[in-house]
Amino acid sequence: MTQQDFPAEEFESRLERAQRAMHAQGIDAMLFTTEAEIRYFTGFRTLFWQSPTRPWFLVVPIKGKPVAVIPEIGAALMRATWIDDVRTWSSPAEQDDGVSLLTACLTGVNRLGIPMGRESTLRIPLQDFDTLRQALPNAALVDVSPLMQALRFVKSPAEVEKIAAICGIASDSFENAHALFSTGQPLNDAFRAFKTDLLNNGAEDVPYLVGGAGPGGYADVISPPTADPIREGDVLMLDTGSTLQGYFCDFDRNYAFGHAAEDALQAYRTLYAATDAALTAARPGARCCDLFNAMARVIGQTSADVGRFGHGLGLQLTEGPSLISFDRTQLEIGAVITLEPSMEIAPGRIMVHEENILITDGPPRLLSRRAPPELPIIQ
Amino acid sequence: MTQQDFPAEEFESRLERAQRAMHAQGIDAMLFTTEAEIRYFTGFRTLFWQSPTRPWFLVVPIKGKPVAVIPEIGAALMRATWIDDVRTWSSPAEQDDGVSLLTACLTGVNRLGIPMGRESTLRIPLQDFDTLRQALPNAALVDVSPLMQALRFVKSPAEVEKIAAICGIASDSFENAHALFSTGQPLNDAFRAFKTDLLNNGAEDVPYLVGGAGPGGYADVISPPTADPIREGDVLMLDTGSTLQGYFCDFDRNYAFGHAAEDALQAYRTLYAATDAALTAARPGARCCDLFNAMARVIGQTSADVGRFGHGLGLQLTEGPSLISFDRTQLEIGAVITLEPSMEIAPGRIMVHEENILITDGPPRLLSRRAPPELPIIQ
Repeated sequence: MTQQDFPAEEFESRLERAQRAMHAQGIDAMLFTTEAEIRYFTGFRTLFWQSPTRPWFLVVPIKGKPVAVIPEIGAALMRATWIDDVRTWSSPAEQDDGVSLLTACLTGVNRLGIPMGRESTLRIPLQDFDTLRQALPNAALVDVSPLMQALRFVKSPAEVEKIAAICGIASDSFENAHALFSTGQPLNDAFRAFKTDLLNNGAEDVPYLVGGAGPGGYADVISPPTADPIREGDVLMLDTGSTLQGYFCDFDRNYAFGHAAEDALQAYRTLYAATDAALTAARPGARCCDLFNAMARVIGQTSADVGRFGHGLGLQLTEGPSLISFDRTQLEIGAVITLEPSMEIAPGRIMVHEENILITDGPPRLLSRRAPPELPIIQ
Repeated sequence: MTQQDFPAEEFESRLERAQRAMHAQGIDAMLFTTEAEIRYFTGFRTLFWQSPTRPWFLVVPIKGKPVAVIPEIGAALMRATWIDDVRTWSSPAEQDDGVSLLTACLTGVNRLGIPMGRESTLRIPLQDFDTLRQALPNAALVDVSPLMQALRFVKSPAEVEKIAAICGIASDSFENAHALFSTGQPLNDAFRAFKTDLLNNGAEDVPYLVGGAGPGGYADVISPPTADPIREGDVLMLDTGSTLQGYFCDFDRNYAFGHAAEDALQAYRTLYAATDAALTAARPGARCCDLFNAMARVIGQTSADVGRFGHGLGLQLTEGPSLISFDRTQLEIGAVITLEPSMEIAPGRIMVHEENILITDGPPRLLSRRAPPELPIIQ
């Protein structure tokens, strides 16, 4: 058995870039406990992360291949990746759930990189983390959140291919909207029909599907569906993060039913124009805040309740950086981002647009198929 | 809009039990950053947890209702729960991503409960956690992992109803196996067919679907599917954690194709008998290790590579406690657990059974429909 989402060269190249950055920052080794980072360096892909029971560790040394220190239940799958050094223990353990095995792996490390900044999570118990720190009294902890964001922000051609493929699948399903959604349909039935269509079109999974429906706009963009029927005059928004081999799309579409209120039509046009402005601004060297400002100018709002107008995309539904006023990250060729302008139509009524794009040396490449310029109306 | 997975009384009762335990342990407030715990006390349910960008906080005080300190993007949904005090900020923030808002909420707390033990995760950046600790120099941190496990282990009748319903849906889909799976079918097509069937039968989501297929057994129980076809003589195992209103089932089924090897048939009978032994032992007052030992005796293995033979189940695919040699947690009426004996048939070839049960004052109630006593063969 071999798990081959990518050839080994993909991981060799990621490791080389990481080690170059580690060298520049004087980091001896990096330690990861979370799904995305472990998958980034190993290709280890499983839904088993749903279970919070067992800790998983990956050590990326300054020289040589990463070392996996993982529960025995993951041994077969990890050994099927390009990783050679897989150290396991029977987990859960009564005492010492992998910590001493990990400690042995980190002895002699003076500067230990670990993600401690924005967007990071410690996916091991705090008690175990404290034990580890005490066992490594000479290791200074260094935040590698910025290092990891910079690495992951720029996608390889193979990664782009997967994101483009799942964006294509979701675009296909959104184009089936007229067949899938109808006035009177309970909202949760609409969600189920859409999810099934995504799977039928080739999505491997639909980890994220949220949205809302309401007269001329919706109140919320992160809710699961109710059983309330879609009504004449409602605007329905569906936002999906579907996956292919663990890579996400993340975009939404809006539909009116029967007829559309004038302010909803107008908001749609404004958001479409905001997205156009961002597409024009999205060139290598432009900063995330530049794209945010380009969209904010069109919308006429300088801050958004959602906090931002887009973000990185790839191994996770959302990745850094953020398209927001304070993020000065420069776009680079190969970066994949979402453009996600939103606005308030009236108190308690908002609208959100979203597209997924790849930064190139020319105009960005749309990975999602561009939304129609006018709010589609389902009769 | 009101999100009503449960009536308010459900949350009042959870809070009352929590505050009684806090009182007994001298804890002034508890702080949570993770999905399951925040949903447990508030009912706040969204797939938005897929995005790692924003921190979320819930404070459970020793008196009064929980206080949500959350990003503005979640305000509408949180205000639709039974929670009254919802404090928000525009996140992501350049500096101070909710930490000072949270600190204000915790001022005066002397003993602050936070999950720090087995199965726990810190879902905020370590840097922010350090800032919080420095801002609360007088607060002693107390591990509330055991307290929370004890609370969540015993389900209310309303929770049991949801778990039973999703177990019924998954049982229906497994009973469709003869129509869904066939020799020659690529494994990923089999997974897709099963997932679609689960959705059609009423599952709201299928966050977990793993398994394997191989001659007379499989190598791995946590893998995503390959595109390899199912072959004559293969044993296919599918293990699903599907959900209804955020509550999980978690069980698997095995199927042979064309014919079954004698050792596979025999392993199946052994695991079935092990499950029977656990069903007999599963009474209030029995300890998790007793159930583990009852199964291990039948199997003739005293340790398992997977580390355990079952676990708690509910808001998460797996919850504490574990059915394992060292877990002395006593079963209680209302506890929901999985029985999950596994064994090695030959090197690199294993088999796993799983059922979901509710502990009652008599024999346990099977929530999954009992697997057939003999390995089913799909012709």
